Amino acid sequence: MSSDHLAPPGSAAEAYAGRRSAAEEGRAVVAAATVGTLATLTGDGEPWASVVTFAALGDGAPVLCVSTYARHGRNLAADARASLAVAEPFGPGEDLSDCARVTLAGVAEAPVGGELDAARDAYHAAIPRSEGYSGWDDFAFWVLRPAEVRWVGGFGRMDSATAADYAAAEVDPVLPHVAGAIEHLNADHADALLAMARGLAGLPHASAARCRRADRYGLDLSIDTPEGEKWERVAFAERVDEPDGLRAATVELTRRARLSR
Amino acid sequence: MSSDHLAPPGSAAEAYAGRRSAAEEGRAVVAAATVGTLATLTGDGEPWASVVTFAALGDGAPVLCVSTYARHGRNLAADARASLAVAEPFGPGEDLSDCARVTLAGVAEAPVGGELDAARDAYHAAIPRSEGYSGWDDFAFWVLRPAEVRWVGGFGRMDSATAADYAAAEVDPVLPHVAGAIEHLNADHADALLAMARGLAGLPHASAARCRRADRYGLDLSIDTPEGEKWERVAFAERVDEPDGLRAATVELTRRARLSR
Repeated sequence: MSSDHLAPPGSAAEAYAGRRSAAEEGRAVVAAATVGTLATLTGDGEPWASVVTFAALGDGAPVLCVSTYARHGRNLAADARASLAVAEPFGPGEDLSDCARVTLAGVAEAPVGGELDAARDAYHAAIPRSEGYSGWDDFAFWVLRPAEVRWVGGFGRMDSATAADYAAAEVDPVLPHVAGAIEHLNADHADALLAMARGLAGLPHASAARCRRADRYGLDLSIDTPEGEKWERVAFAERVDEPDGLRAATVELTRRARLSR
Repeated sequence: MSSDHLAPPGSAAEAYAGRRSAAEEGRAVVAAATVGTLATLTGDGEPWASVVTFAALGDGAPVLCVSTYARHGRNLAADARASLAVAEPFGPGEDLSDCARVTLAGVAEAPVGGELDAARDAYHAAIPRSEGYSGWDDFAFWVLRPAEVRWVGGFGRMDSATAADYAAAEVDPVLPHVAGAIEHLNADHADALLAMARGLAGLPHASAARCRRADRYGLDLSIDTPEGEKWERVAFAERVDEPDGLRAATVELTRRARLSR
């Protein structure tokens, strides 16, 4: 992919990357999920993986609510070093090559005061049924403080983010609308996607294009070409800041694609 | 749940548990998935969780194919202690209370000879795209030898299995037909499910029943009663050994339920 295709006309390519940072990607994966897998240490210092539900605080730190009857609850109480892996939803038989996931590694702490209230509220909102058990004596809230953030985006994209960048990054506001937007684009606007592939992705001989991912900065297309399928990024003219802003940004992208022919 | 409802007429309840063992449950979870999360140890002995694809050998031992460029690949090469957590598919917002998952913990080994061939074949069958990269220099196959197996079945069911029982257990042959059977029962046979609830689950005042899980030994029903929703197990007369045997077993269960009124 050549970077000139990413730069909208009139903007400085340096100032507008046209895609989310690793920190933003990590925040998006965490925001979209309530189930992950926690790695803790057994008494012998061996790794132990267990599936857990979680919520996220405003800075993306995961909140856990675990029982001391659970192995990972006992592990955490004895050694609070922990790591949480979270993946986008994927289907049976998928091989992850098109699936984003993130690993947060750090130390779990018992929240107190206002943060305990925030942790409880976030957890109950994410896992409503937890209101029925989170107050039991054997359950406790934990907040995993990420010291290391590793994102793998699928199709060869991966990067690390600093803990500070991860905490400061915004959750992509269009996230709740992405699945519907992709479905709509592929079902009803194949012509617009093909125009983007030909006019903006530098593939004038493209014969078809499908939208595979979308975010506040643009779309990822898989494009049929005489040389085979290619993945390309087409960037919006500017960052989308409204949750329902994908439609207008995509219309602008289509207009620009058709003009560029 | 009282155990007398589990015993089919004429059989010895002791000899026929009417449900899968923890080892069989673990094998079923692993057989149904190709994605899990691996816990490994960093150079500092800290836990590291990463999402991985896997296949299973005939004894249920997971096969991994990992690159030394991946963090978990480097971790494994330095310290082969590892744990893999695998969950049933679940939807967004689900809280795991109805989701089975298993943790296998042990040591990863590099397979050799015939086992390397078996590992490669199993992995390529599970993750077809891996044929394109599994032979690259930085990729290696690993077999995780489970020393400990922990199964959590959802709704309060959990148990450990010995490594030997896990290895010896059969993968439930009806597994590929379960989702379709449940859909069909709930869509077209509400009357039969209600008869089971009233006649076999000891809930004569039940007003409706839905099938929530199914396996070679029987069905789990969620049942509306004057006292609220209850989960109950109704066991087949005998273990189903044929992949397509759920239908006949369910017909027999319905017949028995109606006779018992």
